[in-house]
Amino acid sequence: MEKYKENREFLKANFQILDEIKTDAQKKVPKPSIQKHYEDNSQIIELPKVNKDMLLKSNIFDCINDRRSIRKYSNESISLDELSFLLWSTQGIQKVMGDNHTAFRTVPSGGASHTFETYLIIKNVENLNEGIYRYLPLEHSLVFMYEVKNIDKKVNQATPKQPFVPNFASKSAVVFAWSTIPYRAEWKFDITAHKKILIDVGHVCQNLYIASEAIKCGTCAIGIYDQKLIDNMLDLDGENEFVIYLAAVGKIDTSI
Amino acid sequence: MEKYKENREFLKANFQILDEIKTDAQKKVPKPSIQKHYEDNSQIIELPKVNKDMLLKSNIFDCINDRRSIRKYSNESISLDELSFLLWSTQGIQKVMGDNHTAFRTVPSGGASHTFETYLIIKNVENLNEGIYRYLPLEHSLVFMYEVKNIDKKVNQATPKQPFVPNFASKSAVVFAWSTIPYRAEWKFDITAHKKILIDVGHVCQNLYIASEAIKCGTCAIGIYDQKLIDNMLDLDGENEFVIYLAAVGKIDTSI
Repeated sequence: MEKYKENREFLKANFQILDEIKTDAQKKVPKPSIQKHYEDNSQIIELPKVNKDMLLKSNIFDCINDRRSIRKYSNESISLDELSFLLWSTQGIQKVMGDNHTAFRTVPSGGASHTFETYLIIKNVENLNEGIYRYLPLEHSLVFMYEVKNIDKKVNQATPKQPFVPNFASKSAVVFAWSTIPYRAEWKFDITAHKKILIDVGHVCQNLYIASEAIKCGTCAIGIYDQKLIDNMLDLDGENEFVIYLAAVGKIDTSI
Repeated sequence: MEKYKENREFLKANFQILDEIKTDAQKKVPKPSIQKHYEDNSQIIELPKVNKDMLLKSNIFDCINDRRSIRKYSNESISLDELSFLLWSTQGIQKVMGDNHTAFRTVPSGGASHTFETYLIIKNVENLNEGIYRYLPLEHSLVFMYEVKNIDKKVNQATPKQPFVPNFASKSAVVFAWSTIPYRAEWKFDITAHKKILIDVGHVCQNLYIASEAIKCGTCAIGIYDQKLIDNMLDLDGENEFVIYLAAVGKIDTSI
């Protein structure tokens, strides 16, 4: 399988490469920030504290057992409490270490590098206008970025060729779009960082699946997407920060 | 960041490549098996049916909130019921579709390709001898592969340079080692398969973290490992099947 050889190599252990490299961390280059900057005059939406009593299906066995990829949603909106729970479950920060550059989160990340920013394409969340938001895990808040005209059309263009239910993402209440800022891991792991980044986003998305079950929402991960369209939509440069994975979330359409 | 360019590209959307490729699936090459073959005369250990009432911490909020990477374990063994729950949570098959080549599992996988086999390096599981086992998700059973002499030493050599607690894997009750058989995804996604495989193993490992919490075990993922040593230990060819991620599990040492 010669044509697969190089890609297969990417999946393998690579730590030995670091023996021959001096990483930026070892060179004492300052550690990159754990959260992307936002402007002082931004519109900030404080998220409600996560409320354990809100969960409709709290048993972990049931959440794991019932999880499916759900591509059909009802028109019911998601509450801010529910969105808060999903964001906390996927990227919530529980503790920041002394130097303000290391955070413990609800998900593990190789070398605690946590390279992700969480963007939300919000369509049907209680008390929030349609548009693009970014999660601020340090403040457990959202920053409103901007409205998008023809948001459904743009979501459909950015997530083409979905199996089973074409254009399902535009019918969800909210699309999670995880970008990576790869330098956060490259700083410590140099060219061995990138395998870890993909595994890490899998950790994140699995918690979204499980947490969605707990509030009787359905989610479906999206691996097929148009890189340029989605990066443009979220105002990412596509080099130092770009989307690597998405997932749509909505209330489950129980009429089906 | 020229030196990172190629690896960063690997993280990006790649579905357009498929427009120019005829995949093996499209060529009607038979779909690869969802479970690796084992010999008829193998020693099979049937796993107990997963028992929801066994969980010590069943609330999903608590499991997500309490999850940490745990590298110190007590000497207490893990029961077969507990091991059964961890295996079911990470790779359990709930439904096999008509053609016997598509399975719904507790974790999602791009295109339902589920390229993983789960190997267990067992040291301290009730009623099981030390040695190497493989999980058979179709039967929810284990196949015993062989004993390994000096198993601690070999685990340590295969998982070098661990941060914080050197050699912690050899002190765990069981090490999960996930191999990939990449062709299971290449069959459908050709050279675009490999990004998905890494994300998928993140899905799997996150469920291990969450499920471990539910039975008051601790787990820690292992991304730094010696490819050749671990592949040899598990009798994998290192080309068509090889380890991509590991995690150690043990009862939490509450004396610390």
